[in-house]
Amino acid sequence: MDVVGPGAAVTRPEVAPDSPFGADNLPYGVFAPRGGTARCGARYGDYVLDLAVALDDPMFAAPTLNPFLAQGPTRWREVRERLRALVDGEIPAAAVHALSDVLLGLPIRIGDYVDFYASIDHATNLGRLFRPDAEPLLPNWRHLPVGYHGRSGTVVVSGTEIIRPQGQRATPSGTPEFGPSRRLDIEAELGFVVGAGSTLGVPIGVDDFAEHVFGVALVNDWSARDIQAWEYQPLGPFLGKSFATSMSAWITPLDALDAARVPLPEQSPPPLPYLTAAEPWGLDIDLRVDWDGVTVAHPPYRRMYWSPAQMLAHLTVNGAATRTGDLFASGTISGPGRDQLGSFIELTRGGTEPVDLNGAPRTFLEDGDEVVITATAPGTGGTRIGLGEVRGRILPAGWIPPQPQSET
Amino acid sequence: MDVVGPGAAVTRPEVAPDSPFGADNLPYGVFAPRGGTARCGARYGDYVLDLAVALDDPMFAAPTLNPFLAQGPTRWREVRERLRALVDGEIPAAAVHALSDVLLGLPIRIGDYVDFYASIDHATNLGRLFRPDAEPLLPNWRHLPVGYHGRSGTVVVSGTEIIRPQGQRATPSGTPEFGPSRRLDIEAELGFVVGAGSTLGVPIGVDDFAEHVFGVALVNDWSARDIQAWEYQPLGPFLGKSFATSMSAWITPLDALDAARVPLPEQSPPPLPYLTAAEPWGLDIDLRVDWDGVTVAHPPYRRMYWSPAQMLAHLTVNGAATRTGDLFASGTISGPGRDQLGSFIELTRGGTEPVDLNGAPRTFLEDGDEVVITATAPGTGGTRIGLGEVRGRILPAGWIPPQPQSET
Repeated sequence: MDVVGPGAAVTRPEVAPDSPFGADNLPYGVFAPRGGTARCGARYGDYVLDLAVALDDPMFAAPTLNPFLAQGPTRWREVRERLRALVDGEIPAAAVHALSDVLLGLPIRIGDYVDFYASIDHATNLGRLFRPDAEPLLPNWRHLPVGYHGRSGTVVVSGTEIIRPQGQRATPSGTPEFGPSRRLDIEAELGFVVGAGSTLGVPIGVDDFAEHVFGVALVNDWSARDIQAWEYQPLGPFLGKSFATSMSAWITPLDALDAARVPLPEQSPPPLPYLTAAEPWGLDIDLRVDWDGVTVAHPPYRRMYWSPAQMLAHLTVNGAATRTGDLFASGTISGPGRDQLGSFIELTRGGTEPVDLNGAPRTFLEDGDEVVITATAPGTGGTRIGLGEVRGRILPAGWIPPQPQSET
Repeated sequence: MDVVGPGAAVTRPEVAPDSPFGADNLPYGVFAPRGGTARCGARYGDYVLDLAVALDDPMFAAPTLNPFLAQGPTRWREVRERLRALVDGEIPAAAVHALSDVLLGLPIRIGDYVDFYASIDHATNLGRLFRPDAEPLLPNWRHLPVGYHGRSGTVVVSGTEIIRPQGQRATPSGTPEFGPSRRLDIEAELGFVVGAGSTLGVPIGVDDFAEHVFGVALVNDWSARDIQAWEYQPLGPFLGKSFATSMSAWITPLDALDAARVPLPEQSPPPLPYLTAAEPWGLDIDLRVDWDGVTVAHPPYRRMYWSPAQMLAHLTVNGAATRTGDLFASGTISGPGRDQLGSFIELTRGGTEPVDLNGAPRTFLEDGDEVVITATAPGTGGTRIGLGEVRGRILPAGWIPPQPQSET
């Protein structure tokens, strides 16, 4: 970057005009500079802006975005406008860190984590695999966005290594066996972060989404298919999912996705009134799944059947409250094409059709494998904005993680 | 109470020798004295002891027990011993409040909330109702404690009114209809509160329960059976449960339940090694369910198939971390007798056999109904200790709750 003038306290970071993290993006996260404590930042090109310094607001010195998110949409827009003005001119040099010099943390303190099942292609593919002799979609699927609660305490930030889970799996004898999962999978998803919560007993209307949701993250909902298949009747997935869910370090504000709004695909039958938006919209976001460096899928978010606004309206229609930091994810994003599948169980048809990975036939994740999910969306003026990445490498079952310092 | 001596700053609260909240109990909670702020307290008879004052420790001036719980079992025991010594003598008068003079709050800031399905009588009863032509217990039931994640953000303290949820329910036409739940039910449960959390990737052994679990609360997991029945395939209960879960204001420390430990009923087949305790134990706790003042059930906790220690070992065997304030509940507690059923769907056989309530035939909850769940357990020396109560009254669907002051 250029330091403007000798001894000047301001700078103009160099960011290419077509950068996916230009002035029309500016996602938020939590970072720690070398030797410093965690605090809120915004990404600009390959730089991180220290928001407490850049905006002279100590609230951003918190190690989580929650206090900012709780302030609501008027304040979110105000801060975004100030940031856009700032990057259009000179920035206090003390506020600018090279991305490569900082650590990135979990951007929010998660309240509740809910995962939906909103892709009709994914639900159909899984229905065919799990119930080959029946209708792939269950009777409720086209009437409500099916969802369930996941474990919020094991949501980790991109880059966190994932220890292969152990658990019970079925055997032909009927007696289960215990061991490391043999069918460890990914689920490429978008996650939606609640900023301004809602009161117990008061549903959020399907047209009030932007009053509550702050932004979007990428999510990999790691799934142990063998554990899940044995445990999930009748109360749903539990240990097959709860060992870890990864989310991107950057949360893209909804306002940065204005140009990505597209009409929602037609819903048949028409949804009930509480799920019927004045102008139903989806998001034209292209995901990409890289497995050990090989691109294996391009899941298209625009194909999703249920919209994010419908998910939130459904989640709260029974009166459930929401809190700052609640995360709800879309469920696996899959399209109809063989190269659009957001999970390996779909990509390999239940593990029966291996894919070629650098010359080796592969079905599920092996120890040492790394998966990186990235995404882009239309920005303003013909550019594309980036949604960061969610990255994770598999460690062997039983790996003992380093103990926190306070325990040594 | 007696004030000892003129102008003395100490007192001896009068507590009957056979009080269920005597010196062998001393459960913990959060209270607000008249005109004061929320802080930690211990119940002694019909008094609440202000722990920050009584123990001269400002940590207890927090509006949640979490900081205390995070300190771990050595500290829990030390505080309990100090409290027992204190109530055996004179207590600073400023630390003593009449229970009737204070408000009781949610005792913990909940991390994750998990609900199990650990009663074999309950699982068998529900299996018969939902799958009348099949084996009532699914193949996995005797091999693992089935469980799922609930919504932690809607766990409320006893006394909070419950607004009847609205949602979708199936109709004979196949097209669902929307409206207030018509099959609103209770689930009488015990909840276990994690004090000292555990690291991601490191399971909690089945014999290490007491190193992590602080104590026990009563739980009513309100359930809308019509919403649940339509939504729950294939990912489990969601909106049928997430509108509210009530917990008691008092958390009984594990150490107060030493005399309630009983051998676990025999498990067949024997569980896998990670679920096999050196000395499997259950808890001899008697629950009571009062519906509009009529006692309708006496669910016996000692009959539960899966032990609390097995639930926690299972919950973490995949490497899932736990946090201070995590709550896991047993699932509905039912015994084999008609008067031992912890839910109304069992009590009324799916709503087909009404019970008599003050002369009226009743199946599920009506607006205005109040349910109170209480419990007692053997104490030391032939007494019984109380586990407090979990109480809730049903308000009509669509009831607008009072807005928080900050929004007016």
